[in-house]
Amino acid sequence: MNFTLDAQDRHSQARAATFHTAHGLVKTPIFMPVGSLGTVKTLSPADLDQCGVQIILGNTYHLYLKPGLEILKKMKGLHNFNGWGRSILTDSGGFQVYSLDGLKKISKDGVEFRSHWDGSKHFFSPQKVVDIQRIIGSDIMMVLDECIPNPSDMERAQKAHQLTIEWAKLSREAFFKSNHLYDYPQFQFGIIQGGIYPELRHESIDNLLKLDFDGYAIGGLAVGESLKEREQITRFCTQKLPSEKPRYLMGVGTPLDILEAIQSGVDMFDCVMPTRNARNGTAFTTTGKLVIRNSTYRSDLKPLDEKCQCYTCLNFSRAYIRHLFNVNEMLGLRLTTLHNIYFYLKLVNSAREAIVDDEFQNYKNSFLAEYKS
Amino acid sequence: MNFTLDAQDRHSQARAATFHTAHGLVKTPIFMPVGSLGTVKTLSPADLDQCGVQIILGNTYHLYLKPGLEILKKMKGLHNFNGWGRSILTDSGGFQVYSLDGLKKISKDGVEFRSHWDGSKHFFSPQKVVDIQRIIGSDIMMVLDECIPNPSDMERAQKAHQLTIEWAKLSREAFFKSNHLYDYPQFQFGIIQGGIYPELRHESIDNLLKLDFDGYAIGGLAVGESLKEREQITRFCTQKLPSEKPRYLMGVGTPLDILEAIQSGVDMFDCVMPTRNARNGTAFTTTGKLVIRNSTYRSDLKPLDEKCQCYTCLNFSRAYIRHLFNVNEMLGLRLTTLHNIYFYLKLVNSAREAIVDDEFQNYKNSFLAEYKS
Repeated sequence: MNFTLDAQDRHSQARAATFHTAHGLVKTPIFMPVGSLGTVKTLSPADLDQCGVQIILGNTYHLYLKPGLEILKKMKGLHNFNGWGRSILTDSGGFQVYSLDGLKKISKDGVEFRSHWDGSKHFFSPQKVVDIQRIIGSDIMMVLDECIPNPSDMERAQKAHQLTIEWAKLSREAFFKSNHLYDYPQFQFGIIQGGIYPELRHESIDNLLKLDFDGYAIGGLAVGESLKEREQITRFCTQKLPSEKPRYLMGVGTPLDILEAIQSGVDMFDCVMPTRNARNGTAFTTTGKLVIRNSTYRSDLKPLDEKCQCYTCLNFSRAYIRHLFNVNEMLGLRLTTLHNIYFYLKLVNSAREAIVDDEFQNYKNSFLAEYKS
Repeated sequence: MNFTLDAQDRHSQARAATFHTAHGLVKTPIFMPVGSLGTVKTLSPADLDQCGVQIILGNTYHLYLKPGLEILKKMKGLHNFNGWGRSILTDSGGFQVYSLDGLKKISKDGVEFRSHWDGSKHFFSPQKVVDIQRIIGSDIMMVLDECIPNPSDMERAQKAHQLTIEWAKLSREAFFKSNHLYDYPQFQFGIIQGGIYPELRHESIDNLLKLDFDGYAIGGLAVGESLKEREQITRFCTQKLPSEKPRYLMGVGTPLDILEAIQSGVDMFDCVMPTRNARNGTAFTTTGKLVIRNSTYRSDLKPLDEKCQCYTCLNFSRAYIRHLFNVNEMLGLRLTTLHNIYFYLKLVNSAREAIVDDEFQNYKNSFLAEYKS
């Protein structure tokens, strides 16, 4: 991946790095908008470009079901299909299957599940998930893992963690045995599990490092644990991870969560929050969340965020966006999504600049001073 | 309006013209996308610009109810509110009230109706509709008229036509008695009614011409009459209208309807068809309508229209757009809407070029030869 550490904060674990995929440079810390079905909801590739997006997330489970492998293969992969020319990371589907309450059956060979579309039965093995991601052609693929609910007792966590390690080995083998299907290489990340138990996380990391993945993700967080637990586990993991590989904290989070995790040495993030909240009418701004349906904004000429330079903030008032939500016009969802994605990218880009300038703590403090969560 | 006739077809009534509003030039024949609530559904002003849109339609009835006059006044009009910098024409609301089955009561003073949002009672008089459009600040306002269903007998048509003439007088007086509220002038168009009865249409035109409107609309068509009836009435009207004023055929239509009406000397069009059909998954293409959900397109790499240069066609395949519709992703609606609006603008712009080059009949014939309706 040609991972280069560009700067290391002297006062924390925060770091700025650059890595390469066949679809361009990725400068970290970076936020990856979620586009489970191949599209970041309401936004076009041109919109994403405008927001400074460098890499988006796709989802193996969703793409496997629709459009399905036959079409993805004919289209020569997701990039060619969805018109997004920059990098794509695909989640393995482990988390989605975990979320299918009552529709799954986990064995040592993999996981059987029913489609949320039509109830049809499917089976994911670690190997199959590699094969699917070969067909998707994502730049970075994730291994199949077993996610567990929080709280889970030590025994439950231990079992899932063991299975995840076994699957990681099978996944890495399948990765090396298979070839990319299109004219560019792919990378593979391992996923650290182990719940809130440091000893399990430790063992998980030890085992994954032996497999020499291209990067390491911290999984199984943002599932209901306390903020303190999450921060402790995150920091515990990053301290044990090699500095020369990217670190990805899956499914996190709020702007504050992200700054905390950057401080703990995380490089990559994804979360549905900026997109999902936007569609519910909540904008992230430098002063905190703004609920656009609030009647306070009915004739407010100000943009969503007075300090923002996105297309939405440069062209539209809170009053207009509130009107769009009030009359159920899709443009409201889109303008708010565009703003939120721009805001998240600005957040991580500013963090990066601050790290490079050795000003991360100041940046974080001044962000926190203004942002009311 | 500084209306200039740029070219007159030698073989038909087709003509190319230019007029000015405070928000720019409008070159005719022109299609005006419908943005009843201040937004052309799914599209941003930047998208509309990209499609070559010169003027959009807003709706007095809809905007009066939401966001309402208080907000529109505070925002200093619709342009300032919705971020659309080019021209806006507002329909008077007559047609919308006519469509509110059972929720309206028409008297000589105006029309009482109930909001489709909350059932609240409201009253539109010809004068009030002028006042509302002063607040909206549309470049071109329409007078309040009474629309009648088709078929309507002579007596019913006569009554509505008489009332529409009375209201036109009151509207014109109100227009001259009032002033624009913002720093630019507005124009007012009269609406010809009279159903399918030439003698009523004739009388309607005679009366409206005395009021010297800035332009004339042919109303009460596209409500269920036959194509032949519509063409006859359209031609009948354009022949009696002065050549130095714009002519607007309300609510029309398919690409073929529009070409026919251009040939009859119409300059301006609006219709929900390109936007509504797009949201139902139907694209207009040079070879006819394309229903994107059709399984034929599941792995079709071609764009919606192989001859189209819009953002959608330059970047996305039928297979991808079909996928977006299949998984209920809003981007599908938007990409198809953008294409359809581009297609309609291309249609009228090409007609204009052909008229200027004295090639209109050839253009129409070659369009029809390829387009299967």
